[in-house]
Amino acid sequence: MNTIGRLFRVSVLGESHGPAVGCLIDGCPPGLALSPGTLEADLGRRRAGSLSGGSGGGAGGSAATARHEADEPEIISGVYGGKTTGTPILILFRNADTISSDYEAFRDSPRPGHADFTGKVRYRGFADPRGGGHFSGRLTVGLVAAGAVAKLLLPGCRFETRLAEVGGQPWPGPADTSRGSALDAAMAAGDSVGGVVEVRVSGLPAGLGEPFFGSVESLVSEAVFAVPGIRGIEFGDGFAAARMRGSEHNDPFVGRDGATPRNGAGGVNGGVTNGNDLVFRAAVKPTSTIAAAQSTLDFSTGKMARLEGKGRHDACIAFRAAVAIEAASAIALADLALIARSYDAASGGKA
Amino acid sequence: MNTIGRLFRVSVLGESHGPAVGCLIDGCPPGLALSPGTLEADLGRRRAGSLSGGSGGGAGGSAATARHEADEPEIISGVYGGKTTGTPILILFRNADTISSDYEAFRDSPRPGHADFTGKVRYRGFADPRGGGHFSGRLTVGLVAAGAVAKLLLPGCRFETRLAEVGGQPWPGPADTSRGSALDAAMAAGDSVGGVVEVRVSGLPAGLGEPFFGSVESLVSEAVFAVPGIRGIEFGDGFAAARMRGSEHNDPFVGRDGATPRNGAGGVNGGVTNGNDLVFRAAVKPTSTIAAAQSTLDFSTGKMARLEGKGRHDACIAFRAAVAIEAASAIALADLALIARSYDAASGGKA
Amino acid sequence: MNTIGRLFRVSVLGESHGPAVGCLIDGCPPGLALSPGTLEADLGRRRAGSLSGGSGGGAGGSAATARHEADEPEIISGVYGGKTTGTPILILFRNADTISSDYEAFRDSPRPGHADFTGKVRYRGFADPRGGGHFSGRLTVGLVAAGAVAKLLLPGCRFETRLAEVGGQPWPGPADTSRGSALDAAMAAGDSVGGVVEVRVSGLPAGLGEPFFGSVESLVSEAVFAVPGIRGIEFGDGFAAARMRGSEHNDPFVGRDGATPRNGAGGVNGGVTNGNDLVFRAAVKPTSTIAAAQSTLDFSTGKMARLEGKGRHDACIAFRAAVAIEAASAIALADLALIARSYDAASGGKA
Amino acid sequence: MNTIGRLFRVSVLGESHGPAVGCLIDGCPPGLALSPGTLEADLGRRRAGSLSGGSGGGAGGSAATARHEADEPEIISGVYGGKTTGTPILILFRNADTISSDYEAFRDSPRPGHADFTGKVRYRGFADPRGGGHFSGRLTVGLVAAGAVAKLLLPGCRFETRLAEVGGQPWPGPADTSRGSALDAAMAAGDSVGGVVEVRVSGLPAGLGEPFFGSVESLVSEAVFAVPGIRGIEFGDGFAAARMRGSEHNDPFVGRDGATPRNGAGGVNGGVTNGNDLVFRAAVKPTSTIAAAQSTLDFSTGKMARLEGKGRHDACIAFRAAVAIEAASAIALADLALIARSYDAASGGKA
Repeated sequence: MNTIGRLFRVSVLGESHGPAVGCLIDGCPPGLALSPGTLEADLGRRRAGSLSGGSGGGAGGSAATARHEADEPEIISGVYGGKTTGTPILILFRNADTISSDYEAFRDSPRPGHADFTGKVRYRGFADPRGGGHFSGRLTVGLVAAGAVAKLLLPGCRFETRLAEVGGQPWPGPADTSRGSALDAAMAAGDSVGGVVEVRVSGLPAGLGEPFFGSVESLVSEAVFAVPGIRGIEFGDGFAAARMRGSEHNDPFVGRDGATPRNGAGGVNGGVTNGNDLVFRAAVKPTSTIAAAQSTLDFSTGKMARLEGKGRHDACIAFRAAVAIEAASAIALADLALIARSYDAASGGKA
Repeated sequence: MNTIGRLFRVSVLGESHGPAVGCLIDGCPPGLALSPGTLEADLGRRRAGSLSGGSGGGAGGSAATARHEADEPEIISGVYGGKTTGTPILILFRNADTISSDYEAFRDSPRPGHADFTGKVRYRGFADPRGGGHFSGRLTVGLVAAGAVAKLLLPGCRFETRLAEVGGQPWPGPADTSRGSALDAAMAAGDSVGGVVEVRVSGLPAGLGEPFFGSVESLVSEAVFAVPGIRGIEFGDGFAAARMRGSEHNDPFVGRDGATPRNGAGGVNGGVTNGNDLVFRAAVKPTSTIAAAQSTLDFSTGKMARLEGKGRHDACIAFRAAVAIEAASAIALADLALIARSYDAASGGKA
Repeated sequence: MNTIGRLFRVSVLGESHGPAVGCLIDGCPPGLALSPGTLEADLGRRRAGSLSGGSGGGAGGSAATARHEADEPEIISGVYGGKTTGTPILILFRNADTISSDYEAFRDSPRPGHADFTGKVRYRGFADPRGGGHFSGRLTVGLVAAGAVAKLLLPGCRFETRLAEVGGQPWPGPADTSRGSALDAAMAAGDSVGGVVEVRVSGLPAGLGEPFFGSVESLVSEAVFAVPGIRGIEFGDGFAAARMRGSEHNDPFVGRDGATPRNGAGGVNGGVTNGNDLVFRAAVKPTSTIAAAQSTLDFSTGKMARLEGKGRHDACIAFRAAVAIEAASAIALADLALIARSYDAASGGKA
Repeated sequence: MNTIGRLFRVSVLGESHGPAVGCLIDGCPPGLALSPGTLEADLGRRRAGSLSGGSGGGAGGSAATARHEADEPEIISGVYGGKTTGTPILILFRNADTISSDYEAFRDSPRPGHADFTGKVRYRGFADPRGGGHFSGRLTVGLVAAGAVAKLLLPGCRFETRLAEVGGQPWPGPADTSRGSALDAAMAAGDSVGGVVEVRVSGLPAGLGEPFFGSVESLVSEAVFAVPGIRGIEFGDGFAAARMRGSEHNDPFVGRDGATPRNGAGGVNGGVTNGNDLVFRAAVKPTSTIAAAQSTLDFSTGKMARLEGKGRHDACIAFRAAVAIEAASAIALADLALIARSYDAASGGKA
């Protein structure tokens, strides 16, 4: 199943080289302004492989794949007169620029790090192999569109997403024109690098989420791991917290709004937002497909085979994944916000 | 909402100082041998704060809280003649050893790192404050019980869970009698430390999970973040993957069963298990409640107040969290296994 | 799976002769006054087999089973200081008055109309056979308790439930002391009769529900068919509408609140409440277990066997089912009300 | 929300006069043969307003609307090489033949029996009013397509659907050339009639469904009430059972496969299929829009207004609804079948 959410429910659909990819959003309230233009900013960030806040800027351009998609969203349902109607919203992106012949070889010789093998097992050999089929990063265009809709349910929230690291190095800000030697060196070697994406969401109300299975971390991580290539996620101090003492990691409350000096908890205590910024980082693996030769098993012969990367791929998918990670978190947060509002309304008059 | 799962659905329930805590499991197939004895091994590990495989051994004993609960599970429903019936399974643990007066002060002066503040906001002041109420680590006893039931759906799987780090230091194995200076030093100072728990699941079939929202990482992380005090999760190479080149992180397939030399993917490609061990690590924060004095805002006066840790708490909750983390992953994997089986049965005769 | 609802989620659990039966409610907002006393009125109606509004009164007493349960609810979790906390609510009813030996014979010779056969198939022979196990009408005590909690989320609503028919005859009102010859005659013959229960809910706001899968009729009927022994449900004019012309069935709107003269739609247009009373009727089959001898197949011999009703059973389960039917509809409506409120809050400021 | 199902999940989407209508199916197993041709038989039945088994034949043709849609399904995702891939299946039907001006008047003067009023309240005035928007019977084309896919998961099952009544009269079989005076008379008067649709599903295995919230009746009725214009549903003897004695309604088992002589239970005992045919009937109201003049409130003036039916509408929607009702039941049964298979696989080796 490829659906997330309780009230704000999102499915992503499509295959990389099929007629279209997109998303279905079921449970979006009526009356929100939504048009292709609403989606354009985030789609543009994904297309360019660039990041919000200007950071990274043109860098992503050359680190990103050569596949060019216009990515014109078609809003098929759920919007009338520029406003959401409250009924299911289907947004499609037609696939145009596809070259399916690139992928034939991978049926027998699955690429390391790819889903060629697992997709075959999971779907019993019936998966669409062209361009990765449903496993393709192309699918994140639907995720990004759904995230842009989700943000409409989070008025007053601001998402700031940046590359914290590329190739193991801190990523320079916009004023720094050098791109980073790790990325350059890997590209020169026909190799790829990973990165760490940090998302900061300000303006969230305190009180979203619940302990245990409804925790903010549970729902945000469920959503974020939907983005292909994520290897880890951490909130606030994250893994560093495991190396701190309680007296260091604990953040005293200093304001009646729940403000803390360090926000080491990343905005969440006991699974519930505390009014500080929600801060998390996701580890993005290096692009699996590389130009340099690799070896893999040829399942038809049982012998190791040499594999050379073809197709069009990013040298660092973190650039392009960043906006999808942000979108995924927005989807989870929109759902949490709707749930919280429902309870507010129910008990508001009684407390 | 405090429920997880699609076919194998688990709710945890109860308050730390209420009549009982426990879990409801809805969707467990019939015919599985289940008795209190089935749960005892994992409950014992939680009680002792110790780990599987002997590692950590007696160490947890002194790092763990002084609260003693018999933790005798009562199986209220869903089991007859020692076998699951296929109907909802309710398992309860009566609360006995509770001292509620410890917690009165925290209503106005929320403890740093705790859910005192967020619980108040989320539940509009109606949450049970005694012993942390529903937010208490006590609730993990229900999680552990549900995990033990989940493992019945994963025949052939073996869970190996160990503390990878305590207080920033690699945790010694059973042959090493020293416990680790970081933990000792923190305890001596009335402070606490965090830890990193690693879970390795062998014997999982290839083909569990799906890309995007149904990914193994999505569902395992959703479950694992239900355990209180988790700050991060990573699979396989995890955050280190973000600092590797593609040529390093990519693992060539070397066996027709999907075997890879390094298992850098942690057993998952494209959201789907690949037949290698599932390997993930969770970062556990240091215990929030410490004996050493801390400051926090007194919300009633608006001034900072001095807070001293009372109650009974672990110096390192990672010891006790380990089995809960393992249980949470088992719950997610059992659900994935049931889903996969349903599809196998449906399409088996047709492929 | 034995769970219903999206935001207000209810599971019923337990076996007739196991330790307890009850319900788990996940997703109830905090701050609602809830104690055993809150449940007493509806539990009392179920116990007596009587109906609201006095109709039916003492009649149910003699039509109902001789099994006496105190039905004292234990609220195990989710309530503190007499108010819901917002966390899962577990309500249990201990089973005491059980005589399991009555049921042994039915394993080989399934009773006509009962779930003896299907339960065996569905649960692979592992179902608890004692007293019907999980299939027992005893389980409706949990349903009724959950319904009483659901009504807390429907302030301003009034449920009026009555027996419209017993044994094919209109059921007399309270002023009529005769009980109805059909019921008397059947009881005298060691037989049983069915009945029709009508539920009328006034005070519901217009705008609950959605077209298609989220329709009020979909969700109410999903809930009502959870009550054992229901054979049909109809809304407003119901099956009679199928025999009317459009000009007869159509109800003109006559008030800006959506009022119609006849309420032939039973309060729902296009799946959405229209502000008129919600009116539905459920057909309750005659009690399956009767004192008169019946025949059934002896699965062990393959020959027809003679079966005589033992155990304690109602002559007309409609008396006792009525409050469960009402409760089931309340559960569905509470869920719809929470969902609607969440959307109101989300789009309220924008429309 | 407009989604149904647990494993086999279906959403219907679109607006009557928007770009397209259709369905998204999430959770369909891989390897099932699916092409537009697979859907054609059921789509053709819907288009013609005719019924399976030849009954009703050409009659529906003249009772059905004059709107002509080619109803060419576009399978956008989830199918490759003529087989389902296991990933989400999106099926769209472009809208072409729309005349939106017909519907402008209904915004202020809601049509009796329609969702004009409730849609406005539910969706806060943001619903698409053209052609009924999301409330239109046009949406059932997506339901019918999803039902055709669902049937692929029910190999060995046969659906026989017939009009049991039209306009209060038994509907003649194919050998009877007269169409039925009630329908003729109503059409001549510019009026409409209702009908009763009976669905019989043979070949279902025993053991689908569960007691209480997972009962076959719960899930089938949830699905069937998604079809616009349904006023009631009954299984087996249905409402007649409420007027029978237990000795009449009870059906003795006569075969080890669960066979009963009368099938008065409609194939379900205790919420679980018993191996007999599943039999249910749905009451379909008369078409709301009629040519004859009706009155309704003009909400803008507060006075009653005269309303004349325009647009293109069926004289009896039961003809066209029949295949949608059948499809809805197939969707519910496919979900139940997948769930049952998952449990079989899980416990099969253990019982």
